[in-house]
Amino acid sequence: MSNQKICSTCQSADTILQEFIANLDVDTSHHRVETQKLKCGFGLQGVCCRLCSNGPCRITPSSPKGVCGATADTIVARNFLRAVAAGSGCYIHIVENTARNLKAFSSKNKEIKSEATLNKLADLFGVNAENINERAELVADKVLADLYKPSFDKMELVEQLAYRPRYEKWKEMGILPGGAKSEVFDGVVKTSTNLSSDPVNMLLHCLRLGISTGLYGLTLTNLLNDVMLGAPVLRKASVGLRVIDSGYINIMITGHQHSMFTYLQERLVEEDITKLAEKAGAKGFRLIGCTCVGQDLQLRGEHCQEVFSGHAGNNFTSEAVMATGAIDLVVSEFNCTLPGIEPIADKYKIKMICIDDVAKKANAEYIPYDYEDSTSLVEYIVKEAVTSYQDRRPLVEINVSKEHGDDEVLTGVSEGSLKKFLGGSWKPLIDLLASGKIKGIAGIVGCSNLTAKGHDVFTVELAKELIKRDIIVLSAGCSSGGLENVGLMSAKAAQLAGENLKSVCEALGIPPVLNFGPCLAIGRLEMVASEIAEELNVDLPQLPLVLSAPQWLEEQALADGSFGLALGLPLHLALPPFTTGSKLVTQILTEDMKALTGGQLIIEGDVKRAADQLEEIIVNRRKELGL
Amino acid sequence: MSNQKICSTCQSADTILQEFIANLDVDTSHHRVETQKLKCGFGLQGVCCRLCSNGPCRITPSSPKGVCGATADTIVARNFLRAVAAGSGCYIHIVENTARNLKAFSSKNKEIKSEATLNKLADLFGVNAENINERAELVADKVLADLYKPSFDKMELVEQLAYRPRYEKWKEMGILPGGAKSEVFDGVVKTSTNLSSDPVNMLLHCLRLGISTGLYGLTLTNLLNDVMLGAPVLRKASVGLRVIDSGYINIMITGHQHSMFTYLQERLVEEDITKLAEKAGAKGFRLIGCTCVGQDLQLRGEHCQEVFSGHAGNNFTSEAVMATGAIDLVVSEFNCTLPGIEPIADKYKIKMICIDDVAKKANAEYIPYDYEDSTSLVEYIVKEAVTSYQDRRPLVEINVSKEHGDDEVLTGVSEGSLKKFLGGSWKPLIDLLASGKIKGIAGIVGCSNLTAKGHDVFTVELAKELIKRDIIVLSAGCSSGGLENVGLMSAKAAQLAGENLKSVCEALGIPPVLNFGPCLAIGRLEMVASEIAEELNVDLPQLPLVLSAPQWLEEQALADGSFGLALGLPLHLALPPFTTGSKLVTQILTEDMKALTGGQLIIEGDVKRAADQLEEIIVNRRKELGL
Repeated sequence: MSNQKICSTCQSADTILQEFIANLDVDTSHHRVETQKLKCGFGLQGVCCRLCSNGPCRITPSSPKGVCGATADTIVARNFLRAVAAGSGCYIHIVENTARNLKAFSSKNKEIKSEATLNKLADLFGVNAENINERAELVADKVLADLYKPSFDKMELVEQLAYRPRYEKWKEMGILPGGAKSEVFDGVVKTSTNLSSDPVNMLLHCLRLGISTGLYGLTLTNLLNDVMLGAPVLRKASVGLRVIDSGYINIMITGHQHSMFTYLQERLVEEDITKLAEKAGAKGFRLIGCTCVGQDLQLRGEHCQEVFSGHAGNNFTSEAVMATGAIDLVVSEFNCTLPGIEPIADKYKIKMICIDDVAKKANAEYIPYDYEDSTSLVEYIVKEAVTSYQDRRPLVEINVSKEHGDDEVLTGVSEGSLKKFLGGSWKPLIDLLASGKIKGIAGIVGCSNLTAKGHDVFTVELAKELIKRDIIVLSAGCSSGGLENVGLMSAKAAQLAGENLKSVCEALGIPPVLNFGPCLAIGRLEMVASEIAEELNVDLPQLPLVLSAPQWLEEQALADGSFGLALGLPLHLALPPFTTGSKLVTQILTEDMKALTGGQLIIEGDVKRAADQLEEIIVNRRKELGL
Repeated sequence: MSNQKICSTCQSADTILQEFIANLDVDTSHHRVETQKLKCGFGLQGVCCRLCSNGPCRITPSSPKGVCGATADTIVARNFLRAVAAGSGCYIHIVENTARNLKAFSSKNKEIKSEATLNKLADLFGVNAENINERAELVADKVLADLYKPSFDKMELVEQLAYRPRYEKWKEMGILPGGAKSEVFDGVVKTSTNLSSDPVNMLLHCLRLGISTGLYGLTLTNLLNDVMLGAPVLRKASVGLRVIDSGYINIMITGHQHSMFTYLQERLVEEDITKLAEKAGAKGFRLIGCTCVGQDLQLRGEHCQEVFSGHAGNNFTSEAVMATGAIDLVVSEFNCTLPGIEPIADKYKIKMICIDDVAKKANAEYIPYDYEDSTSLVEYIVKEAVTSYQDRRPLVEINVSKEHGDDEVLTGVSEGSLKKFLGGSWKPLIDLLASGKIKGIAGIVGCSNLTAKGHDVFTVELAKELIKRDIIVLSAGCSSGGLENVGLMSAKAAQLAGENLKSVCEALGIPPVLNFGPCLAIGRLEMVASEIAEELNVDLPQLPLVLSAPQWLEEQALADGSFGLALGLPLHLALPPFTTGSKLVTQILTEDMKALTGGQLIIEGDVKRAADQLEEIIVNRRKELGL
């Protein structure tokens, strides 16, 4: 509560949140930026190796090699590939469980919410069955079969899922992925002690992982979820801490595996459950969205209006959400569930349940999600939520900031809903691009971190800088959480856009920054891009389209980024991915990649210069397209 | 060549090698110990985290948590599990390729070299076929099927392969592994940014990985190789640099996937090939063993007498082997192939070929091993070896130390050959244990490093200290390479043993340190131990048996060690596995584990104190057994 505390938190683009956090009497990640401000230069540059007991070794001018003889190039490439492999593993884990859930859904004859998406996938995969549930099961089986192939067997669905010119390019380069799980496995083995020393081989492996991550983790996950949970529909929604109503028993959910909450959503609106809440003194149950699973629920808010309160914020908002005192239970199933929430859960007596072993929090109870039995876990969660509500509410102070957030966020944007909005064709958007009303498209995607100028600071500033230049921004990931909480995803933000883009936004009643939802939806952006490219009969690197993951945080973001590079897109990061210690790796990622895939990594820590570079690329691409 | 150079290499237990290396005018790992002697304390303690862009974070008294809130316990456990997962992945990669090769062998109707082992496996796995090749294929299929199971499906063969009381214990603890590849995958995902924060859950995962590593990587690999390549037979062999005859075209092999060299071995002894060598001015072709694949060839030397020169040395001898100038080609297929050999290959104009993508060396040509086509690769290797010999020999100086090594090493020791030697039963060994002639058994296993007192220094000193106390030593791994090169695996070493053990060795004509071969053969030690335990009707933790991986080097060793802990054995390491920064992790590994599996980690950097502790455990176990 002291001034000292206010000084010690990092800056946030979300000033209301920043003040809220600064006034908490618990430590959060925002506080710990200060205590961890002394960074290790070796780690930052990626030239520290801890793979064996002769180490750790660090590369310096006087020790240019590790004991084993590994150079900076080898060490940096190894560290990078291992991170990409782990990140890819995370997304492949998600799509695997999503496919398993679709299989379980189908076997229980649950209602298919988007038959159109199911049929699209069945057609694409060449499977069919009269019965809709059987069809869904066949689709799920196809996905699972690909994921479990050995690395020496190419995945079958890549050809169906990829934009044709990209597929041909990847085939030519020899980077078509084998079984996605084995590719992750191989990436880890390859980076183990005294295995690969070849940076080029390792970076090509990153591209392979990028492709499997992108097509399966970032594309199929969404489509399989659409089948089970309904496709996104455009709608307005409230976001931020204001969505929390302390009158309810509030369950905060974190993770990326949305379909694991379906039964819970359905159960929480049943009458007996509401009665249970009322008996405990509450108005009912509410799910509070946090991290990407919150973004995904928000995206599909149309199908979940009764119980979903709204999306409170991204990864680095979660500690604040819990510190409102109004959360009674946390159910987590994946990252980005910060360890920092644990002491806050203790202090605010918030029960934590984890339903996926890989994401077990130290002080959470672990109850595995059961694909066969959909009721026991749900009943247990309900029971624990009620108990927690009753036990803790008399003991804790509630402090929900109703100023925080926005009520006018346009959500539900997807490749499908956007096209529908445009009248069922991309032509209106292409015409706007051609006329220059929209100069180009920038995907601002990925995480939020606290170190690229502060919490969401770079993301928000870059988005503002780009829309000012008539570049429309599409966002997916925790970046969206930041952008929406500061109002950039509401129609009123058109005021911040350049004259051309502003007029488009005003005419259409849309914001200049469109919210595709969770990081998983990066695959939806790719679908939009591919459909536009197809319409124009060009390859992706020819489009006036750039990517930025300005505030990448996690290993997953590096796998996403590898997808971007494989797609041939320029990818900006505000912070380097621990690779600057190798000239060779830097050269390949930032320069040589252009000739390989068409992509390039741009590391630029200054907002204006980053926007300049991205705009320049867009302008050049426009020229090359004769626009 | 200067005195300065002599001073700048690390100590080796192998003084002839040490001098040889000190006099080289190329840099080796032994030289780089000096330039990398300043170690990062955070890395050594495992309290540095580089999983996200808010980092790297380091734990100090004034910054007890990472930005995300991760504690030292979480960070240490995460780093450790990731290393164990990678190490496990390495062994699972090996057993997968070995099983694939057995399948390919069988389909080509190649001669099965050990039908007894095949039948043992077929019986164990419950498969049968009249045709021997079909039987082999069924066995291989069973292994592959298990490896590719999802992590939520338990592997079927675990129950067949494990010692019964261990299986029951693991089942009770809930650590029976699912599909081995998925367990590795999950271990990596679990340790990714903001996933698991629970040290206990992560350490239990390590045990699960230890079990799959041990039973599949360290046990089945050997048995599948026995089927293809013949079971080990006791014999005497020469070791060290002396095995290199510069009159031949010498191919140095490194890695762990022995069966990949079978066709090469067979081809190199054919008459037309010898003629080819003679035409080039050489006496013929020789394979020079290095790292574990050399140990494995040595172990099976009986079946490969004509072309295999012998085992030159372990991982940190490989640079010296190449610097003799007498190596014309290196064929590598896995680790421990040090990056340090690359500049030496350049300097000595040695062509390098890598036949497994995961182990690609920067300056090696990559020619994938082809399971279907056994001839093209072999012919290419022969052609390149001849060309290299002709091109380089006029240009390089040859400097083979004929003093280095030993001619009397007892090799070919396995669970089978040892039992046969004892008359087909373990009773003679049990009687010697019961009478106290042999006080106990110590497995000194794993790698060689350069930092536990120097190259093989701790390994050799500990072995000497233990045999002096009448504790017989069984070795497997690069440790064997060190122990044999200094004479401890020759019968004459009996002189160094205590009176009781000495009398046993002299009576049987065996050395007090028995060489089981490569690190893969740690599984053979486990088979010996299980068979003895079964005969005594006790569980493994009751045996007067201890393990030490004094000079563990690689992530693989940590997976091996996890197997040891799962088996319930005391496991000594001279250097801590980057875990000392967490009191909780240290407490679990060194203390709580005793109540869990019966195992315990012992970190002791002093040879005598380590021997004291190991002896004390043996003495106590003897008492508890009433001996």
